[in-house]
Amino acid sequence: MRFEELNWFDIENYLQEDDRLILVLGACEQHGYLSLTTDVKIPQALADAASQQTGVLVAPAINFGASPYFLGFPGTLSLRLSTLLDLVEDVVRSAFGYGFRRILVLSGHGGNDGVRSRLFEMSNELGDLRIAWYAWWESHSVSQIAQRHELKPAHANWLESFPFTRVSDLPEGEKIPPKVAGLLGAEQARKVYGDGVFGGHYEVDQSIMDEVFAAALDDVLVLLRFE
Amino acid sequence: MRFEELNWFDIENYLQEDDRLILVLGACEQHGYLSLTTDVKIPQALADAASQQTGVLVAPAINFGASPYFLGFPGTLSLRLSTLLDLVEDVVRSAFGYGFRRILVLSGHGGNDGVRSRLFEMSNELGDLRIAWYAWWESHSVSQIAQRHELKPAHANWLESFPFTRVSDLPEGEKIPPKVAGLLGAEQARKVYGDGVFGGHYEVDQSIMDEVFAAALDDVLVLLRFE
Amino acid sequence: MRFEELNWFDIENYLQEDDRLILVLGACEQHGYLSLTTDVKIPQALADAASQQTGVLVAPAINFGASPYFLGFPGTLSLRLSTLLDLVEDVVRSAFGYGFRRILVLSGHGGNDGVRSRLFEMSNELGDLRIAWYAWWESHSVSQIAQRHELKPAHANWLESFPFTRVSDLPEGEKIPPKVAGLLGAEQARKVYGDGVFGGHYEVDQSIMDEVFAAALDDVLVLLRFE
Amino acid sequence: MRFEELNWFDIENYLQEDDRLILVLGACEQHGYLSLTTDVKIPQALADAASQQTGVLVAPAINFGASPYFLGFPGTLSLRLSTLLDLVEDVVRSAFGYGFRRILVLSGHGGNDGVRSRLFEMSNELGDLRIAWYAWWESHSVSQIAQRHELKPAHANWLESFPFTRVSDLPEGEKIPPKVAGLLGAEQARKVYGDGVFGGHYEVDQSIMDEVFAAALDDVLVLLRFE
Amino acid sequence: MRFEELNWFDIENYLQEDDRLILVLGACEQHGYLSLTTDVKIPQALADAASQQTGVLVAPAINFGASPYFLGFPGTLSLRLSTLLDLVEDVVRSAFGYGFRRILVLSGHGGNDGVRSRLFEMSNELGDLRIAWYAWWESHSVSQIAQRHELKPAHANWLESFPFTRVSDLPEGEKIPPKVAGLLGAEQARKVYGDGVFGGHYEVDQSIMDEVFAAALDDVLVLLRFE
Amino acid sequence: MRFEELNWFDIENYLQEDDRLILVLGACEQHGYLSLTTDVKIPQALADAASQQTGVLVAPAINFGASPYFLGFPGTLSLRLSTLLDLVEDVVRSAFGYGFRRILVLSGHGGNDGVRSRLFEMSNELGDLRIAWYAWWESHSVSQIAQRHELKPAHANWLESFPFTRVSDLPEGEKIPPKVAGLLGAEQARKVYGDGVFGGHYEVDQSIMDEVFAAALDDVLVLLRFE
Repeated sequence: MRFEELNWFDIENYLQEDDRLILVLGACEQHGYLSLTTDVKIPQALADAASQQTGVLVAPAINFGASPYFLGFPGTLSLRLSTLLDLVEDVVRSAFGYGFRRILVLSGHGGNDGVRSRLFEMSNELGDLRIAWYAWWESHSVSQIAQRHELKPAHANWLESFPFTRVSDLPEGEKIPPKVAGLLGAEQARKVYGDGVFGGHYEVDQSIMDEVFAAALDDVLVLLRFE
Repeated sequence: MRFEELNWFDIENYLQEDDRLILVLGACEQHGYLSLTTDVKIPQALADAASQQTGVLVAPAINFGASPYFLGFPGTLSLRLSTLLDLVEDVVRSAFGYGFRRILVLSGHGGNDGVRSRLFEMSNELGDLRIAWYAWWESHSVSQIAQRHELKPAHANWLESFPFTRVSDLPEGEKIPPKVAGLLGAEQARKVYGDGVFGGHYEVDQSIMDEVFAAALDDVLVLLRFE
Repeated sequence: MRFEELNWFDIENYLQEDDRLILVLGACEQHGYLSLTTDVKIPQALADAASQQTGVLVAPAINFGASPYFLGFPGTLSLRLSTLLDLVEDVVRSAFGYGFRRILVLSGHGGNDGVRSRLFEMSNELGDLRIAWYAWWESHSVSQIAQRHELKPAHANWLESFPFTRVSDLPEGEKIPPKVAGLLGAEQARKVYGDGVFGGHYEVDQSIMDEVFAAALDDVLVLLRFE
Repeated sequence: MRFEELNWFDIENYLQEDDRLILVLGACEQHGYLSLTTDVKIPQALADAASQQTGVLVAPAINFGASPYFLGFPGTLSLRLSTLLDLVEDVVRSAFGYGFRRILVLSGHGGNDGVRSRLFEMSNELGDLRIAWYAWWESHSVSQIAQRHELKPAHANWLESFPFTRVSDLPEGEKIPPKVAGLLGAEQARKVYGDGVFGGHYEVDQSIMDEVFAAALDDVLVLLRFE
Repeated sequence: MRFEELNWFDIENYLQEDDRLILVLGACEQHGYLSLTTDVKIPQALADAASQQTGVLVAPAINFGASPYFLGFPGTLSLRLSTLLDLVEDVVRSAFGYGFRRILVLSGHGGNDGVRSRLFEMSNELGDLRIAWYAWWESHSVSQIAQRHELKPAHANWLESFPFTRVSDLPEGEKIPPKVAGLLGAEQARKVYGDGVFGGHYEVDQSIMDEVFAAALDDVLVLLRFE
Repeated sequence: MRFEELNWFDIENYLQEDDRLILVLGACEQHGYLSLTTDVKIPQALADAASQQTGVLVAPAINFGASPYFLGFPGTLSLRLSTLLDLVEDVVRSAFGYGFRRILVLSGHGGNDGVRSRLFEMSNELGDLRIAWYAWWESHSVSQIAQRHELKPAHANWLESFPFTRVSDLPEGEKIPPKVAGLLGAEQARKVYGDGVFGGHYEVDQSIMDEVFAAALDDVLVLLRFE
């Protein structure tokens, strides 16, 4: 269940039984031909599926992340990392105040990794807060699927091309990954990446995407045990 | 159209024709028997309706606002005002970077009013940025409807009870507004407000709600002209 | 009594008997033909009068507020809202440290409203701190006087034209309020508002001003009971 | 002339002729038997006197400074240094925006010295801004007077005991300065300093105070030439 | 050459010929039996070696990083990530001001990765600034050496055990990596990691360490070409 | 002993016996013909010498300070004061967490003085933290030596010209101190100070430097008693 469908009495009741929460940490940034909120949609889909199986609540999504390198692609709405740190802190601290103690952060975006630093700082301060962090695209299980199918996972390529992230037709075939040296500023990134995809297949068979989703969901379910 | 359904090419194309953007500024906070994200859902509904009529794009919603006084009601996830200021700044600044020049902020929550201060600061800095701000529940047009029906608008009462914000049954009848003196901290607010509603009718006839929505939508459409 | 006329022994003695404090939260901003510090002078006058009747102490005034929209009028000295939040926090926190527990903030300026958000945050943190907030010009009692005399209250018009805020002659008659759409940046505000007054009568009979002051003072005295 | 007695037209007119401004940077902190706002009153008196002779305008005083070490003495209202930096920046930046280019900061309080760092940062950014800083009690001219009369200047002793800072009777005679090692926290400072005076004569002949004031005023007048 | 051995004339002269700079970004944190400043010493050694071959200057090391998870191990001196972001920004901005345009950041510590976000933000702002980032322990070349020798690289194990990071005897043999779930707070990390090493061999043959260093140095030399 | 030569077990053991720490607070800024890190090297040398005699540990140096006024001299790497405050806070707070209770800050740079404000704030918060601060060049003992030899101490002149801070030949003779009025921005400072030295002898007999060092070391040893 999502907070969106609940009122405060529901949360109070839930906390009688459980102290877990799923927090979707996304981004609004270019994903080539895919939706600008691909990094929200994927962890949200995982959160909803996991919630359905476990009953663990899902907080409203954090729709923005830190994507300074994509500010040359219209539609990317990026937070300074310092803003994002404060935002996540405030949400987590609010939840902690009611008795949420085990929070699984489902990140959809690599640029948000610095957030873990603030979460560690908060863990140090808030005695019994436990945080788990899951970045589905870097997970061992998803990597193995990619390897098995001899596919290279990369930003905005097949890896993120789910039915629910597609908002237009995709090019056929494969893109040769551009050569990148150093940290590319927004303007350079626009030039180097062209359509915004980091290379590889634009799309693969839906059965592979189902495999990927199922594997990630399994990981989420394991993490939700907080063992 | 929402950013969620678009990719960056779509935004680039849109900016050839238009420079307007709707930004939904909500909150995740107790609304009595109504959804915790009532303050997102109402401006989002207005934004979607206005977008359908005008084609103006809608950015992903800011799902959290400043609600420190409701931190005694489980499920309220509140940002410090300073965090919210930075968050809105970063989103607006990103949009400005691509050529968005006229931004209508649809606020769903009174506690977010301080954001206008930062928007003024940004207007001063960013020459040709134009910002309009709409707080539907304080608008002249909505107030008039309330007066005509001899209804008092208040937090989480009939005023916000739309079909799409209702997540449970509502009490019948009317609540006597509690007496409030001074700024209530979270703990006091919980005691004083009981179920979280500020008083008055819990619900009114749907036809009145339709009137309210239509009136607010008209206001939004006028503001989108940026005259 | 004002802090200005006291030493620290006096404060220590006072705290044996009372834990109330009045904090004047002003602004230095254009007020048309009136003093740049009109928003300090009015609440200061109320504070002094209330102090005389009740003995409650008055802290040194906060002479600056958030007035970004008036930065096109020379003499407006505006704080970023974030600065103002920190400033008020530090003053209130210092006072709390000595045992002040009931603090009445007399605001002279609408642009300072966001400060309440930080005060709520502090109330949540500092158990027994109680804050009352009074914005005299928005009070029910002052509005009623305006209505009775068929006058419209507005920035820098008759409403703020007390003998102690006048620093030059005033124009005769009435100003037609300019039409305003959206949030005006500093440059636009300068153009739209001309002399800086928001419209209506520049001045009214002193007896009305006495009524206004007396009504506001009554409100302050009631609030100082902290009931 | 003080801003308090002027409206924005006056400032605009002034800036046709002059671009100098005096900014009083004070503190609200224990001064033994003297006024809590001694550090405002002294630079304010110097500012008023200098303004009378030169016509240079005086901004509203910054009534609070950084006095963390005196937070054990009731009535000290201290800003974090970071807050003070932002406050001074905002005031100076506002003034710069209208054309003020030469700003003399009259500091009344040693704890505010860190502010110079921010002023340097601003000078680097704002090309033709010129800042002068005057801490009267550390000036060569005042030190010489103290030496000539074989007096030791110290916090809250004779040095700051002007008719306009006295708010109660003063002890007779001399206080032996306490021994201080390390940075004293607020609690320790309270114990070590007792009445809050750092030692030496509580009071000296008024003619000496007149000498001190005249010498400091001379310095201010020289600095106002900005040569 | 290090800044430590130069004066400002030397920097001015250097900038006539070159615009590159190496910045060592370290940490002061537990490394099991190794030096607390292992994460400074390794990139510093690489910087010195690269400087000797290329003449590129080396700025004074940033001796502290973000290590909140190790605050249970005495001697770890950790910066909040927000502090570290500001620190690196100020250093880079200062260097940029003199004409340094190509800056290679040699990071010694994974917890500092969030810094890249601020560097991207700065690249967007400062047109022609180019930043390269090197985290030697994650590099392809070092990974390959580990794989070839069937060694697992991990925090504070053989991988970081250079002659110049060793400050005591090392245990013999191998440590079984502890099982870790979720983000460990400081207290938990202390319990889980025991001696602070993440597992694997404590030490390997010096010839392997020489290989590692040579490979990393090669990478650094390539990156210094900024191609 | 320096942290650089220790591992975390060493710190844990040390804290069984002692709770003192020396923190070197330096700067990287122009010192005329002397090393850019003169302000690190001198307090570091004092720290090492004092550590050798007392066994008190020395934390890794803070290599950067607040030097905004020297940003016109290539090689000065300056922190905003606000950054420096946070940096020192984080280091001190980390150390406090392990049981360090008496911390001697050896400052090498006058521009860092504002840091004391934050240290006072921390002392107020962290009950039994004791901080001592030593600015060797302002000490009574060093001043006396200068007076005895009829030498004027000043930035980058003989006073800081130790064998270990010299990185090039020094001019012979004496420099006439330039006239300075107001706070010089970076550009002005460059013009006014020429080679960066504030005037006086560039160099004096080594025996005087030995006297200076010995006197400062004596002071440090006394302060380390924390009496």
